[in-house]
Amino acid sequence: MASTETATLEQAKAGRAEGLWAPALTALGGELAPDAERTVAHVRRLLDEEGCHGVAIFGTTGEATSFSVAERKALLEAVLEAGIAPARLMVGTGCCALSDSIELTRHAAGLGCKRVLMLPPFYYKGVSDEGLHASYAEVIERTGDAKLEVYLYHFPRLSAVPITHGLVERLLAAYPETIKGIKDSSGDPEGCAHFIARFPDLAIFPGTESIMLDMLERGAAGCISASANVNGPAIRRVWDAWKDGREDRQELQDEITATRLVLQANPMIPTLKQILAHRLGDSAWLGVRPPLTPLSGEQATALETELSRLGFDLQAA
Amino acid sequence: MASTETATLEQAKAGRAEGLWAPALTALGGELAPDAERTVAHVRRLLDEEGCHGVAIFGTTGEATSFSVAERKALLEAVLEAGIAPARLMVGTGCCALSDSIELTRHAAGLGCKRVLMLPPFYYKGVSDEGLHASYAEVIERTGDAKLEVYLYHFPRLSAVPITHGLVERLLAAYPETIKGIKDSSGDPEGCAHFIARFPDLAIFPGTESIMLDMLERGAAGCISASANVNGPAIRRVWDAWKDGREDRQELQDEITATRLVLQANPMIPTLKQILAHRLGDSAWLGVRPPLTPLSGEQATALETELSRLGFDLQAA
Repeated sequence: MASTETATLEQAKAGRAEGLWAPALTALGGELAPDAERTVAHVRRLLDEEGCHGVAIFGTTGEATSFSVAERKALLEAVLEAGIAPARLMVGTGCCALSDSIELTRHAAGLGCKRVLMLPPFYYKGVSDEGLHASYAEVIERTGDAKLEVYLYHFPRLSAVPITHGLVERLLAAYPETIKGIKDSSGDPEGCAHFIARFPDLAIFPGTESIMLDMLERGAAGCISASANVNGPAIRRVWDAWKDGREDRQELQDEITATRLVLQANPMIPTLKQILAHRLGDSAWLGVRPPLTPLSGEQATALETELSRLGFDLQAA
Repeated sequence: MASTETATLEQAKAGRAEGLWAPALTALGGELAPDAERTVAHVRRLLDEEGCHGVAIFGTTGEATSFSVAERKALLEAVLEAGIAPARLMVGTGCCALSDSIELTRHAAGLGCKRVLMLPPFYYKGVSDEGLHASYAEVIERTGDAKLEVYLYHFPRLSAVPITHGLVERLLAAYPETIKGIKDSSGDPEGCAHFIARFPDLAIFPGTESIMLDMLERGAAGCISASANVNGPAIRRVWDAWKDGREDRQELQDEITATRLVLQANPMIPTLKQILAHRLGDSAWLGVRPPLTPLSGEQATALETELSRLGFDLQAA
């Protein structure tokens, strides 16, 4: 690569999100309402104590789609009022309803949160890239904020509406300054490697730390993984070992992969809330919004046995 | 069946929705906002001139999931303010966000619209019947209206969250006075026949008129079909012929099946809007919200050729 090309690429990458990002869990209170106090404390722990470079609020793990626009706006406001820096947040704003996506994106940008993580509208299936492009374009144009950074959220198993290479190309052609990255929650290393190879200027984040080191070595920007809610420090060690070119990086990677396999053996969100409740001695963290359900007593016991076997610290944060 | 059992069954069925229901299209105006005036006029035509027994607003065909809660509430209010009787409406209120489903259901019930059509929360996939039951239960209990009638919306191709027999049984056991029926948009005649056989007290509506006569003869309550937006009178003739036991009912069914095949050859919602725009000479009807896209010029021309070949009247309402 010629040095000017390198410089351009480095410039394009400057200011992109990178590193370990945790899609924060959302605590629930009475009547299944979001519990701002517990959620804010969790976000703060992730950033200050658990080694996360940033927090994605209102991702799949945060049960974003289970909350109303008003609930999501109020919770973001509470996080910011608590003094969390907008630069360390990525805000989920992609909804089925175009008007909701516009409202949430404007709201986040208006509060200085320039990074948004956007699911495509996910009710209609088999829609065209043209239609998905039109949806993102409406949100970007009606938000009208030159600083907005859109991270496309590819989660085909849940959205069943994939982010295709063709869609990314269209969007990059129209909004080169705004489209900044992709969170690839497909779990497919080959697909993630293809995103990295084809879109070298974008920040590509695999959605699982199982493939983090491999993807970092191919050019990924980091990782946005649900596991970071409970295993941040260990995942961060892999990032640091990779950054420093240390020889133990694969060994550290193998450890977090083993933990991940246990975490994902049962439904992920109740599993993470179970661990957090156990660790904090706070059963309020067990609550999930329907249609999710808490782990059964049996599942919880089996989970704790498995994690102890791996030497995973269930007590300390 | 003993006569008392028959009486009980008839009693249970009394007051259930039945007949031909149109899931009304939603007209769009400037900035892709809902156009209340055109939508209300369309609802009125469906009821007064097109032979529909009722109208389901905010179904899949009405692009419900593409609109915010505020937009949906305003449009329902406009329909009621125009003098449409609540008894002739079924209001779509099922969203991903529990709080949205509760707000819309309360709103509809508060305005006297006791019949609601509820999608399950559809972002998370592979969720348990227990979790789906909890979701419907929260909505029913927090609405707290003894007159509420819930019609479960089974549309596995789009929601990817099926309404299982187990879920229906759980809900019927808990809310026997509230769970009134199922709209089965699977398109699968066998599955629809199973719903009818297993839940004889529920009003089962296939979501396509292609199987209407067959299902009516097995005990279906009617049909809720997108096609009724443009082919209501012909579908109604099948209903009437079946009601009257007329011999030409199969012949009439074959006609509407042939039309349906043409309608569903391209994406359904833009197809129906294309026909309506053509028929009314009103291009405003062409608008769809992203991620949907209007038919291409080629698709529109091919559609009109096919429909003319079938003798489908493209001019008159």
